[in-house]
Amino acid sequence: MRLVEGRNTQATAMHPIRALCFDVFGTVVDWHGSVQAEVQRLGLPLGPEGASAFALSWRAGYAPAMQDVRSGALPWTDLDGLHRRILNRLLAERGIVLDEPTAADLNHVWHRLQPWPDSVAGLLQLKRHYAVTTLSNGHVALLVNMAKHAGLPWDTVLSAELFGHYKPDPEVYLGAAKLLGLPPQQVMMVACHPSDLRAAAACGLRTAYVPRPLERGPGGTMEACTPDEFDVVASDFIALATQLGAASEQE
Amino acid sequence: MRLVEGRNTQATAMHPIRALCFDVFGTVVDWHGSVQAEVQRLGLPLGPEGASAFALSWRAGYAPAMQDVRSGALPWTDLDGLHRRILNRLLAERGIVLDEPTAADLNHVWHRLQPWPDSVAGLLQLKRHYAVTTLSNGHVALLVNMAKHAGLPWDTVLSAELFGHYKPDPEVYLGAAKLLGLPPQQVMMVACHPSDLRAAAACGLRTAYVPRPLERGPGGTMEACTPDEFDVVASDFIALATQLGAASEQE
Repeated sequence: MRLVEGRNTQATAMHPIRALCFDVFGTVVDWHGSVQAEVQRLGLPLGPEGASAFALSWRAGYAPAMQDVRSGALPWTDLDGLHRRILNRLLAERGIVLDEPTAADLNHVWHRLQPWPDSVAGLLQLKRHYAVTTLSNGHVALLVNMAKHAGLPWDTVLSAELFGHYKPDPEVYLGAAKLLGLPPQQVMMVACHPSDLRAAAACGLRTAYVPRPLERGPGGTMEACTPDEFDVVASDFIALATQLGAASEQE
Repeated sequence: MRLVEGRNTQATAMHPIRALCFDVFGTVVDWHGSVQAEVQRLGLPLGPEGASAFALSWRAGYAPAMQDVRSGALPWTDLDGLHRRILNRLLAERGIVLDEPTAADLNHVWHRLQPWPDSVAGLLQLKRHYAVTTLSNGHVALLVNMAKHAGLPWDTVLSAELFGHYKPDPEVYLGAAKLLGLPPQQVMMVACHPSDLRAAAACGLRTAYVPRPLERGPGGTMEACTPDEFDVVASDFIALATQLGAASEQE
């Protein structure tokens, strides 16, 4: 197991990283591009820009839907359920009627998202030195289906579903470390969302920021942050593997 | 996705198998041989036959220990905790004193068990057609460590720990199907223990029996069963892949 060379080298040496927990939507897979492509493939009367806006609106509905679960307004509902509620509204707003099998299949696009070009290769490098797992608000079935579809080589799939809480609730980060049998200091959260990383850090996890400037498509905005908030900043998973001493040429 | 050709072909055609859940200790890994070897390597004064008996006694303590959890005599305790209680007793009975780091490391032998010769190759074949997961009484951390050590290519790790119940409690089998997003009829339990398979079948899962005659070492006994109790019987995981239409040459 290699040590992380970062701004907190001394703390890291005392607590070598053993597991990397990855945010998935945006960090590992390109939800915007995948949803846009599938909406266009399906022939919804939206045009390319409308398809992009549709993907953005679908994703934008997700935070308030999770908040309804968090507040207790909704009982625990998995991401398929939340996505479907939002989809029904978006279709209705646009006056689009889909038959039930088509709507159900479209809702499952979130199980079929495409990885970023570096995701699989980077994970394969990282996996040789660390346990690599999801830590996503997606449910287990979605994450397993996505991994099969995209060839994501997880050691295991960890999900908000296992804890009955959605990120950024602390139960998710602490629950993941507990299931991995590790103190939070030996677990690193990897995400393109500073808010996710800040919540992980508040639970004692270490953090790697991998910005994904195309998450919301060309011209999309990213959450503001200061890179030195995080233990590691890397441009993609290959660069992360290099920084964490897991790259091929370092064998 | 291929269909299983078995004695219940019609039922299978209506409910094609989508996921295979594997018992681990004995079915995937050789606990007896691995524990025996590690005890000998450590130089415990037992001799080869004593090391074999030590492994058998360690494993034999596991069912009563789980029963203590099931009855409520013990609160939920993970397998490291149960294994350590048994180990302490076995060492005391033999008058063996180990320092704490050595005893803790020996207790972790259950994280380092060797796979059977066909396990990895068979799982890799099966994985191309089915989701392949553990469904073990081992806890998540143990199963992840074992997978890293032995190169077991799970799609995800499912454990009794996630359900707060040990097999053969129905919560484990039904909980696994639910997390996989599948009806029990689309999930197949794979095990070398007929009792595990019978409990899975009682929950609606399909069953594959893979006998492991060397589980308890040469001359060890196996649970009695009638092969036609199960949907599929295979001599090892390669044969299972062939029967389930997932073998390489069938691509």
